[in-house]
Amino acid sequence: MKKIILLRHGESIWNKKNIFTGWIDVNLSQQGILEAKKVGSIFKKKNINIEYAYTSFLKRAINTLWYVLNELDLLWINNFKSWKLNERHYGKLQGKNKKEIIKIYGEKKVFKWRRSYIKQPPKITQNSNKYPGKDIKYRNIKEKYIPTGESLKDTFNRVVPFWKNNIIKNIKKNKLNTILIVAHGNSLRSLIKYIENISDKKIENIEILTCKPLIYELDKNFKFIKKYYIK
Amino acid sequence: MKKIILLRHGESIWNKKNIFTGWIDVNLSQQGILEAKKVGSIFKKKNINIEYAYTSFLKRAINTLWYVLNELDLLWINNFKSWKLNERHYGKLQGKNKKEIIKIYGEKKVFKWRRSYIKQPPKITQNSNKYPGKDIKYRNIKEKYIPTGESLKDTFNRVVPFWKNNIIKNIKKNKLNTILIVAHGNSLRSLIKYIENISDKKIENIEILTCKPLIYELDKNFKFIKKYYIK
Repeated sequence: MKKIILLRHGESIWNKKNIFTGWIDVNLSQQGILEAKKVGSIFKKKNINIEYAYTSFLKRAINTLWYVLNELDLLWINNFKSWKLNERHYGKLQGKNKKEIIKIYGEKKVFKWRRSYIKQPPKITQNSNKYPGKDIKYRNIKEKYIPTGESLKDTFNRVVPFWKNNIIKNIKKNKLNTILIVAHGNSLRSLIKYIENISDKKIENIEILTCKPLIYELDKNFKFIKKYYIK
Repeated sequence: MKKIILLRHGESIWNKKNIFTGWIDVNLSQQGILEAKKVGSIFKKKNINIEYAYTSFLKRAINTLWYVLNELDLLWINNFKSWKLNERHYGKLQGKNKKEIIKIYGEKKVFKWRRSYIKQPPKITQNSNKYPGKDIKYRNIKEKYIPTGESLKDTFNRVVPFWKNNIIKNIKKNKLNTILIVAHGNSLRSLIKYIENISDKKIENIEILTCKPLIYELDKNFKFIKKYYIK
């Protein structure tokens, strides 16, 4: 039996301000740091033995992982960071306050952008200084893969290949039993959609709690057995 | 041309107290944190573009790396941690004050243990609660490789295979140009002994400065071209 622990990063300084963050690399708030440390103490209490970790290229996730591992005295555990675990890219909505966007586009459209599985937000252009291709982090990604505004389906389409080709392969190769994935609301929703085989419609109403460890138990073929939050 | 940047971790809370640390996992002092941040600002000033990093299983090195990368806003850079980059295992000397040891064993013996390439310190036993095999960090190491007291030569014999089979392989495979290795006085001395082909006698008198980036320029076959500190 494999334990895959999913963890959505702690509160960022923008979560507080209700801004669409997406790929913008904002850090944890003080509250977010406390939440991450608490997760570490939960793992300690429950004797969860993490062997390897994954995280995104975004520091709110990377630092959440760091505070969790530091609390457990497990900083020496190896981890792999990938842009494929990044939050959904929110295109032109990124950096904007949610109320402000509703004023511009109307509540109905914004609701669809947030909830629909296939609806893409307005995209940024490659000329925008917010285009990820201009960021050193993403210099090695082929242009055709660099997002400019993703639907949840687009996010799914980069997360799932990473799950199959990188995470599962590594678990098999190194005979791991328990791994931790620290990522974002929508990259994690993509992953659970795949693992639980959730329909496009149903995934719209599924949320993942912030900085609460969600354990997925999978069989040796990585088929879903059960899931639960621990606290 | 490849740039291999060697960095000995910042001051630990035991460096201050003049204690043989070895594999004991003590953290950075406040001074050590400042030193690490300063290295980050040096890399920034010199436009050093780190693409990948290596460090040991010991938190004074891991955290030095973290503070360097955080200063550079490069926390997303992947790194690999290995016990093979750990400090030399100082056997029974670990955890003891250097003056105290001189009192017990005499200055001449202690001088030899510290300096000689082949001299091993008094070893701990597998029954000792300081035996690394009892530490979760080292649970995956085969018993015959778990050190109980190393000469510099013993350290060399684990560092060099790691350099060849892991670091060089990764640099070739991923076409890297600049990597950072954050480690310890003796694991780094082992590495430069190999890279520069330094004799057993000469290595005894070579020291590496604490938390000062030492750049090795190597050709495409990883042959030594030149070295220099940057500041």
